Amino acid sequence: MATNQSAPYKVYLEENEIPKQWYNVRADMKNKPAPLLNPATLKPMTVDDLSAVFCKELAEQELNNDDAYIPIPEEIYNFYKMYRPSPLVHAEFLEKALDTPAHIYYKFEGNNTSGSHKLNSAIAQAYYAKKQGLKGVTTETGAGQWGTALSMACSFFDLDCKVYMVKVSYEQKPFRREVMRTYGASVTPSPSDTTEIGRKILQEHPGTTGSLGCAISEAVEVAVGTEGYRYVLGSVLNQVLLHQSIIGLETKAALDKLGVKPDVIIGCAGGGSNLGGLISPFVGEKLRGEADYDIIAVEPASCPSLTRGKFVYDFCDTGMVTPIAKMYTLGHDFIPSANHAGGLRYHGMSPVLSQLYADGLMRAVSVEQTAVFEAAELFARTEGTLPAPESSHAIRAAIDEALKCKETGEEKTIVFGLTGTGYFDMVAYEKYNNGEMSDYIPTDADLEKGFSSIPDFGI
Amino acid sequence: MATNQSAPYKVYLEENEIPKQWYNVRADMKNKPAPLLNPATLKPMTVDDLSAVFCKELAEQELNNDDAYIPIPEEIYNFYKMYRPSPLVHAEFLEKALDTPAHIYYKFEGNNTSGSHKLNSAIAQAYYAKKQGLKGVTTETGAGQWGTALSMACSFFDLDCKVYMVKVSYEQKPFRREVMRTYGASVTPSPSDTTEIGRKILQEHPGTTGSLGCAISEAVEVAVGTEGYRYVLGSVLNQVLLHQSIIGLETKAALDKLGVKPDVIIGCAGGGSNLGGLISPFVGEKLRGEADYDIIAVEPASCPSLTRGKFVYDFCDTGMVTPIAKMYTLGHDFIPSANHAGGLRYHGMSPVLSQLYADGLMRAVSVEQTAVFEAAELFARTEGTLPAPESSHAIRAAIDEALKCKETGEEKTIVFGLTGTGYFDMVAYEKYNNGEMSDYIPTDADLEKGFSSIPDFGI
Repeated sequence: MATNQSAPYKVYLEENEIPKQWYNVRADMKNKPAPLLNPATLKPMTVDDLSAVFCKELAEQELNNDDAYIPIPEEIYNFYKMYRPSPLVHAEFLEKALDTPAHIYYKFEGNNTSGSHKLNSAIAQAYYAKKQGLKGVTTETGAGQWGTALSMACSFFDLDCKVYMVKVSYEQKPFRREVMRTYGASVTPSPSDTTEIGRKILQEHPGTTGSLGCAISEAVEVAVGTEGYRYVLGSVLNQVLLHQSIIGLETKAALDKLGVKPDVIIGCAGGGSNLGGLISPFVGEKLRGEADYDIIAVEPASCPSLTRGKFVYDFCDTGMVTPIAKMYTLGHDFIPSANHAGGLRYHGMSPVLSQLYADGLMRAVSVEQTAVFEAAELFARTEGTLPAPESSHAIRAAIDEALKCKETGEEKTIVFGLTGTGYFDMVAYEKYNNGEMSDYIPTDADLEKGFSSIPDFGI
Repeated sequence: MATNQSAPYKVYLEENEIPKQWYNVRADMKNKPAPLLNPATLKPMTVDDLSAVFCKELAEQELNNDDAYIPIPEEIYNFYKMYRPSPLVHAEFLEKALDTPAHIYYKFEGNNTSGSHKLNSAIAQAYYAKKQGLKGVTTETGAGQWGTALSMACSFFDLDCKVYMVKVSYEQKPFRREVMRTYGASVTPSPSDTTEIGRKILQEHPGTTGSLGCAISEAVEVAVGTEGYRYVLGSVLNQVLLHQSIIGLETKAALDKLGVKPDVIIGCAGGGSNLGGLISPFVGEKLRGEADYDIIAVEPASCPSLTRGKFVYDFCDTGMVTPIAKMYTLGHDFIPSANHAGGLRYHGMSPVLSQLYADGLMRAVSVEQTAVFEAAELFARTEGTLPAPESSHAIRAAIDEALKCKETGEEKTIVFGLTGTGYFDMVAYEKYNNGEMSDYIPTDADLEKGFSSIPDFGI
């Protein structure tokens, strides 16, 4: 259990080394991500189109494929200083437990009350809403990380925050709900009778426990229909990946300080907010021909959008109220099985990441739930921190890569993103501890059912 | 919302600046804490006496009133590096919200999975148990922070860990229980049929939901009766304060780096582990006549051992299986009302802190529950982190001191200990959010009832 006392276990950048600009990987992409289209006209969405739903400056960021660096406003930077820089940790104890020649590092984004990286974009979106003079924002939340992060951000800027929380989560995760309420957010179980679409769904399906698709539709309806409100989203969008680039920029700065060049970079992928943020500066180097990295997206076998999905235009939500995006998708009607990594249960994938994947700039693997929790338990016991189920997908893949190194004798350097903590996921851990967790891999027939919901836009 | 960008918001010491020795304040005390006595013979407990229950090296630390500094073994130091140094944060956003001329800093001990400072002593106690060749340790836990910390520590050193958890907590806090199980601990609701005393209590009180006193008795019985096991405790003891001195040493080092000398130092006090650790080096300076500080212990009005208790010999547990200690006590039979800060519901107080208080080296205040949660909410919304109810007692007192400065115009520097996070305390926050929280201050008659349980030892 002895460690090398000469090398630091954790690297914290100095506070004034927190990056002052976000990095926009789209500027370096030869093949840009396909534009968001209006599903009725099939014309690209303009800033004006998007400004009806999003804050204007965020709509501009959404469509900005040109500027490689965008300055972080001072107010956001000051908030970042409350919980950033986040540590880059050398997982020496995990290495020892695996008896691997590989070197494993992880970037830990969970040391804040939202418990994840989601705060990086939430504070940015809240800031632009405040700057535009808005009264508040609306959003949906499933597992609750995003809703919590947005509640914290809105509380900081004194903005109203209306969260539509999938009813089953609202009832099963009362603690997440109370954290949001403590930060002053109003949390409404969805579907609700506060919106037209909610009332319609409740009438048609009286006993429904809701879905993310329905919650999105309610949040958008309220944003569009309420003076001084806009809608915000925690993943998938280009703007979110831009804000999350702070993860990758800090990671790279810390590795540079250590004089370490990674061989493999691993992140879990649901909508892509964490993975996109982590890999952005490294992919930028690849795109500019300055360096090469083996980049791995890890997704649940139960929701395999990259590894088994189609790269086509589809709706971003089940309710078909959003623009359409070209992305790897399982079909907007695809219902993933009840995997415990709620943050990874999304039918699509960020258009930026989808394009990078299509262009061979990263690869993807899928992992099964019980193997993920095995990895989570080993990580908790050796490295101390109890990881979120989502993050544990990246841990699983990192361990698998390290075990390959053990076979081959290679001393690869592996870096993965530890997006958050599992303190609100103990129901899942309890299932695992009791030996009651099961795996589920959709059959080809299951996938076909999802694919059949993808409209033929003739493009 | 702008901050002074020139001064850092947080101070992290470098990893190699983590103190290499604990500081033992007893060495500098003119009036030493009164010795633990055998209740039957009234003779001071010796290392041999204590070694039947505690690891030998811990028994030695318990009785060591002479060595001011005790080196931190390398194995413990390496574990500390996983989550230490902890940050000292300048609470600029809280200062602004209060519009106070005071400068407020806090030492944050919650950035680890146990969620509190308890890990500082848990890892030390587990290490000495391992070093002695033991198979495992036993303990009790109420709110669950200590049990979680000990589970993590035992997992790291591959020691068995048997936790007796007060039955009502076991049932109401299943998530805490699952964290412990994830780290491999066995968690038994107390009273249980696994011990003689547990069976006796179950027979006498069939429907009982347990108490800390009973859980201690069960844990001690198992430790003493099982080959290769010892009992460990998370507060009150001298050894625990010694290990927790790392909090104060880091705080002092960080303040020195900033060139800041505090005027007021504030900590919450239940058994005294956090307060004792935080103030040790500062009290040392006071004792040696090198500096002066206004040191404030904050306790719940519902369990006011310092502000309304008696400074006499009493049992440390309800079941009267422990040695007796001279301390401020409400009587070992005192049952505090159902305050949500479970970690502060203890009838006694660390003998070291009791002596310091009796000698006028610190003062004490008591605060009421709803005012504590008001402070917690303000802190969460301004500084980001959702605090534990226990820690929020210190926040309340720090805010009160800062508001006094606003009245007088004084620019005092206030430092307080933020012992942990409230992620497992959302039931309490829910009560507060719903306006259903009440206060309770024991009457003099209530206290008399507790005092009547203190035996007359004739000393």
